Amino acid sequence: MTSTFQNRDIISITDFSREEILHLCGVGKRMYELEKSGRRNSLRDVLKYRTLSYMFYEPSTRTRTSFNTAMRELGGRYDGFSGTEGTSVMKNETVRDTVTMMCANHFDVIVMRHPLDGSLQWAADVANVPVINGGDGKNEHPTQALLDVLTLYLLNGGDLDGLRVGFGGDLSHGRTVRSLSLALSHFDRITIRWAAEDFLGMPKDLEQLLAARGVRVLRDATVVEVMRNVDFYYMTRPQLERMPGVTQKDILGIMKRYRIDLDKMQGISARVLHPLPVNSEIAEIDYRVYFTPAQAFFAQAEFGIFTRKALLHEMLGQGGYQGFDSRLPAGLEMGNNRMARGIRGVKQQSMFIDKIYNGTVIDHLAEGTLRAVDAVLDLVCRGHSCTTAVIEEKQNPFIKTNLPELTERDLKQIALISPEPTVNYIKDGKVTEKFVYLLCRNTNCISRTIMEDVPPKFYADGDEIRCRYCRRPYTIRSRKASLEEVRDFQGGLPADILH
Amino acid sequence: MTSTFQNRDIISITDFSREEILHLCGVGKRMYELEKSGRRNSLRDVLKYRTLSYMFYEPSTRTRTSFNTAMRELGGRYDGFSGTEGTSVMKNETVRDTVTMMCANHFDVIVMRHPLDGSLQWAADVANVPVINGGDGKNEHPTQALLDVLTLYLLNGGDLDGLRVGFGGDLSHGRTVRSLSLALSHFDRITIRWAAEDFLGMPKDLEQLLAARGVRVLRDATVVEVMRNVDFYYMTRPQLERMPGVTQKDILGIMKRYRIDLDKMQGISARVLHPLPVNSEIAEIDYRVYFTPAQAFFAQAEFGIFTRKALLHEMLGQGGYQGFDSRLPAGLEMGNNRMARGIRGVKQQSMFIDKIYNGTVIDHLAEGTLRAVDAVLDLVCRGHSCTTAVIEEKQNPFIKTNLPELTERDLKQIALISPEPTVNYIKDGKVTEKFVYLLCRNTNCISRTIMEDVPPKFYADGDEIRCRYCRRPYTIRSRKASLEEVRDFQGGLPADILH
Amino acid sequence: MTSTFQNRDIISITDFSREEILHLCGVGKRMYELEKSGRRNSLRDVLKYRTLSYMFYEPSTRTRTSFNTAMRELGGRYDGFSGTEGTSVMKNETVRDTVTMMCANHFDVIVMRHPLDGSLQWAADVANVPVINGGDGKNEHPTQALLDVLTLYLLNGGDLDGLRVGFGGDLSHGRTVRSLSLALSHFDRITIRWAAEDFLGMPKDLEQLLAARGVRVLRDATVVEVMRNVDFYYMTRPQLERMPGVTQKDILGIMKRYRIDLDKMQGISARVLHPLPVNSEIAEIDYRVYFTPAQAFFAQAEFGIFTRKALLHEMLGQGGYQGFDSRLPAGLEMGNNRMARGIRGVKQQSMFIDKIYNGTVIDHLAEGTLRAVDAVLDLVCRGHSCTTAVIEEKQNPFIKTNLPELTERDLKQIALISPEPTVNYIKDGKVTEKFVYLLCRNTNCISRTIMEDVPPKFYADGDEIRCRYCRRPYTIRSRKASLEEVRDFQGGLPADILH
Repeated sequence: MTSTFQNRDIISITDFSREEILHLCGVGKRMYELEKSGRRNSLRDVLKYRTLSYMFYEPSTRTRTSFNTAMRELGGRYDGFSGTEGTSVMKNETVRDTVTMMCANHFDVIVMRHPLDGSLQWAADVANVPVINGGDGKNEHPTQALLDVLTLYLLNGGDLDGLRVGFGGDLSHGRTVRSLSLALSHFDRITIRWAAEDFLGMPKDLEQLLAARGVRVLRDATVVEVMRNVDFYYMTRPQLERMPGVTQKDILGIMKRYRIDLDKMQGISARVLHPLPVNSEIAEIDYRVYFTPAQAFFAQAEFGIFTRKALLHEMLGQGGYQGFDSRLPAGLEMGNNRMARGIRGVKQQSMFIDKIYNGTVIDHLAEGTLRAVDAVLDLVCRGHSCTTAVIEEKQNPFIKTNLPELTERDLKQIALISPEPTVNYIKDGKVTEKFVYLLCRNTNCISRTIMEDVPPKFYADGDEIRCRYCRRPYTIRSRKASLEEVRDFQGGLPADILH
Repeated sequence: MTSTFQNRDIISITDFSREEILHLCGVGKRMYELEKSGRRNSLRDVLKYRTLSYMFYEPSTRTRTSFNTAMRELGGRYDGFSGTEGTSVMKNETVRDTVTMMCANHFDVIVMRHPLDGSLQWAADVANVPVINGGDGKNEHPTQALLDVLTLYLLNGGDLDGLRVGFGGDLSHGRTVRSLSLALSHFDRITIRWAAEDFLGMPKDLEQLLAARGVRVLRDATVVEVMRNVDFYYMTRPQLERMPGVTQKDILGIMKRYRIDLDKMQGISARVLHPLPVNSEIAEIDYRVYFTPAQAFFAQAEFGIFTRKALLHEMLGQGGYQGFDSRLPAGLEMGNNRMARGIRGVKQQSMFIDKIYNGTVIDHLAEGTLRAVDAVLDLVCRGHSCTTAVIEEKQNPFIKTNLPELTERDLKQIALISPEPTVNYIKDGKVTEKFVYLLCRNTNCISRTIMEDVPPKFYADGDEIRCRYCRRPYTIRSRKASLEEVRDFQGGLPADILH
Repeated sequence: MTSTFQNRDIISITDFSREEILHLCGVGKRMYELEKSGRRNSLRDVLKYRTLSYMFYEPSTRTRTSFNTAMRELGGRYDGFSGTEGTSVMKNETVRDTVTMMCANHFDVIVMRHPLDGSLQWAADVANVPVINGGDGKNEHPTQALLDVLTLYLLNGGDLDGLRVGFGGDLSHGRTVRSLSLALSHFDRITIRWAAEDFLGMPKDLEQLLAARGVRVLRDATVVEVMRNVDFYYMTRPQLERMPGVTQKDILGIMKRYRIDLDKMQGISARVLHPLPVNSEIAEIDYRVYFTPAQAFFAQAEFGIFTRKALLHEMLGQGGYQGFDSRLPAGLEMGNNRMARGIRGVKQQSMFIDKIYNGTVIDHLAEGTLRAVDAVLDLVCRGHSCTTAVIEEKQNPFIKTNLPELTERDLKQIALISPEPTVNYIKDGKVTEKFVYLLCRNTNCISRTIMEDVPPKFYADGDEIRCRYCRRPYTIRSRKASLEEVRDFQGGLPADILH
């Protein structure tokens, strides 16, 4: 069992099976028991001389401190940065280069937080040591979900089946509710209840996904109703920063109805959890609740140590260190996002190659984008002897250039302006390659940031296509690709992100 | 003797007795001797596996580095944060929650600096491990005072009695002069001399306090006169940031007369101390003084290591670590600031309860504050079904509401607007509780910050009432409380902050 | 051999002899071999209990992390600061005081980065433990040069003679090209080729210096020509921040011609180095080059660890720790920048001392500076009873004051206004001392910052006079000093910075 975690990247809670979650809970329980029997440092030889790098592009005290403590108690060490002010990030260094630089510094594991969705999958692709996601944009924070599960496991007597959990606060804008409920969906007879303002409620897609996995999801009219019918009430902080048009005053008014206070807890035995920090201005948990036996969120905070100790123990506890490899993995160079199109003979080609025998033609550009795409190519040409022509045919406006091919950066810039362009490479009067260039539509995904040089990649998740990095579904909208071409493309994708 | 310091919080230098100061000086001297005989790391097993948390809400290099070095040499470890930019503090987390989170991370001792007066007493109340004050607002920095005392002790041949110390620079705005002189007041035949501009001079209250404790305090006309008559001259930096209306240029002019330079030191044997940093623009110590044998402030800087080693050795050197307790101490929930008032029968009550049989009445409000208090209650009501009425009687304007009681937060908000309000709780037509709500008047005290949820507490210091947190004296001004009620209140207070 | 490095300051790559460079390469190679044979931590007893202080006044992740890793693997520890926001630097503390404070904190070695040229030589003068330059302004970054040399040494099979190295990007504004090429100039049959825009090209003085040392320096028309004829191509980042009037767009256009991309690398076997970070917006190395076997810059990054391990091993590997000395070295008090002038009898003096029998006269002031110098003296007088008179004689306008002498600060302020003033001290009607006050002309040199109290010092480098701190040549321009006086002055200077 242990081998599942050895040197494994920890990117998303959805990558964990029921067995894996239970295994980590078991190891976490052992860490808990060591602590409570006064043997905090008894495993201090496990990670002797092993070193963790914390790379927090967004500063963090809580998560960073928790990992550091876990390393310390296992005999390991740590170093890194928290916040980017003044570091090399300011000098336009890519995530790829910074991660590689950290690997060159002989770290054995990297914990990273970064504002872009999917940045942690990318970091894991780059690094030759295991990478742990400490939060990638709005996407994932899997060790938070693991510590939440461990908390439920320990407080529920070592069992997760049959749990009844309430969610409150903001089910819509945070990542906590989604991650925890998906983790719980592996277990039997789970009931989730919630009460919240419509725009803070459980997202429909999540509700459906949970229902499909056998979780009973119920919406109640009031917090009190929820609390009466659950074993644990998981409160979360309204993520004001993600609610344009909603004021602090609005939230204060709304939260009066949804905050946990003594009135609502009369005669209720549910225990209160919270990922922390509580926002003391909104006070989604009233301070008087802190003094009741229901308060379980500080125990939960400590359980974060046991979770991280368990994880690091399983990931690094066996075998020695990994030497640095100064070669980048080949897979980082190019994406799998080129949907090939049939090349249908010279006649068809002649439409646009009457004056071009070697070069590139980009067609199926979106209306009104011709000039902007031309400007990109103009920039590409700078310093090369190349020509570009804009042909404004009514049926199919296109651009042709004598550049033999375009780089990933050039194509990405064009796709940002005109999504899903068709690219034709022409040699000696023949179209040698013809494809639609696909780019993730999540505007916060790392694969859309030109300077990061992340090659767009997708994988097939059942009937859906998903971005390898941010895992958002991708729907092909190209006007010209045939159904067959789309099917072929999807068939060629890996069936799993972890291929 | 040692047991005095075991697991003790270090909040104020005034908490130390003569014996305790001498004990720490003795241990500090041992640390000094180990260093000077090349055995810096000989105590490296004392704090093996023990970990210090530095929580510097205001950044620090000097104090933080000194504690870290002390921990290292005693075999311990450290982690934490310095500066709040981007940490959870920015997310409105209370000191209570951040301190508890650090305790959950298995630290054995906390060193904290925070901009609010009294914040360190509060942190100590919260934490289940010992807390050391690294500076709370304008209030205290006790390990600075201890290192100053150790410096005098070591440079004076292991004796503090009979010392003659001069103070210069800014005796008025800093905390150094107050702390050190109070520490010295425990010893016999102490003489303190000073010369400074009036507005930078020794505060009257301090002078009186020292005199009462048998210290001879003399003001001299010139720095030279002071220097001629002391063994040590303790220079301090003018705290410009605390002198509204005084310009840098003004200070430069004034300091010409009070700075320590070679001219003033002609034929003088006093040694020069300074808590550092010297402000190199003001140059309160001329750079040429650095090269004279009188310069003792760099030795003083090193003695900070011995002081912190001594303190940590005594505090943590015995016994094992303390497990985290996820329950908050009960005493954090409510203050002892409710001065009870007699309930004098139905007749009296009828004045304002003609229309209220269950609810709260707030009276004795200050003139012109009715509307503002009403707005607070209005906010409290939001989301509840409650009514509030403002009664503008000439004699005693008051507010009534059907809220059964008010929280600490509500009361604090009202007391910030109208100090010492009288609160009446009414049930079934009877006044069940009637009290004046007291709140510390120090505008920088942590107990006045609504969001921190610090319950106002007081203690009796002889004839005075003092705030538990910032320790400022509190004078009851309520127009209505009888002398008997005031006496009763004070009699019920603990006699000491360390109750 | 080892003894050369024991406790030695590492300030400039030019301080290293051929033998010393080869010795460090040899030790670095041993570190490399330990790593590649899985014995990363085998030297963990070498620096047991030794502690490195990182003092990064400008923040750094790369250099700091590399030193920390080196310390860790040698069994040592580290602590310090990175970035000055909120530290004592903000409180106007001098470098002298901050460095001394760090020494008082029992560090065994200091790595420092600071924005002022020469600041590291000054720090080394102050500290009683060895100091390593981690970058002083635009001046030096010697461990970068050492790691570059180790990279060439290891990738070239343990030999540096006969190397052919190409330089690209920005040879003009960075310190990397200068430092590395000067280090290589110790070896035989070195060829350096380069191609760059004129204003980014190799500085003339460097080219001449290299030629004088036997290096063959060739300018080629294109990057391809350079690459065809070298073993290693060392690319650097255009330092836009040091090119006033040049826009990002200009650079992007220029760099198209000079960036390393796949086209230029066709059929070329040179390996590509880069100090990192690559600027991903300029992309001076195209991302596709990262995936070619020519990419050697990530290996180079790792070799930084071996370089620093080698250096720390040699510097600290023998003997125990150094106790702190709270006395400052006497040499810090006064500079050697006073060019004495003959005192030619009472008659000459009477010109300006008709009314002054005790005091100071400053003459040979530059035109139009009299009033400004007077204002400085006025400030000096504040708080003293002194008078100052401005005499505007046509031939030789001068200022006289009854101050008996001026401090280093006063003189520096005057020299900043009117370079090379002549200062006359007069006692009892006789000129007792007469000198020209010299001050380094590099506006970024630490010796020109009044508040730092760095005494100007010079040394004789062959026929040149150089500033001890920033090492820039200094030409005496005083209108009045005789050739003899100049010769005498220069003859009295130490022949070497390391005196």
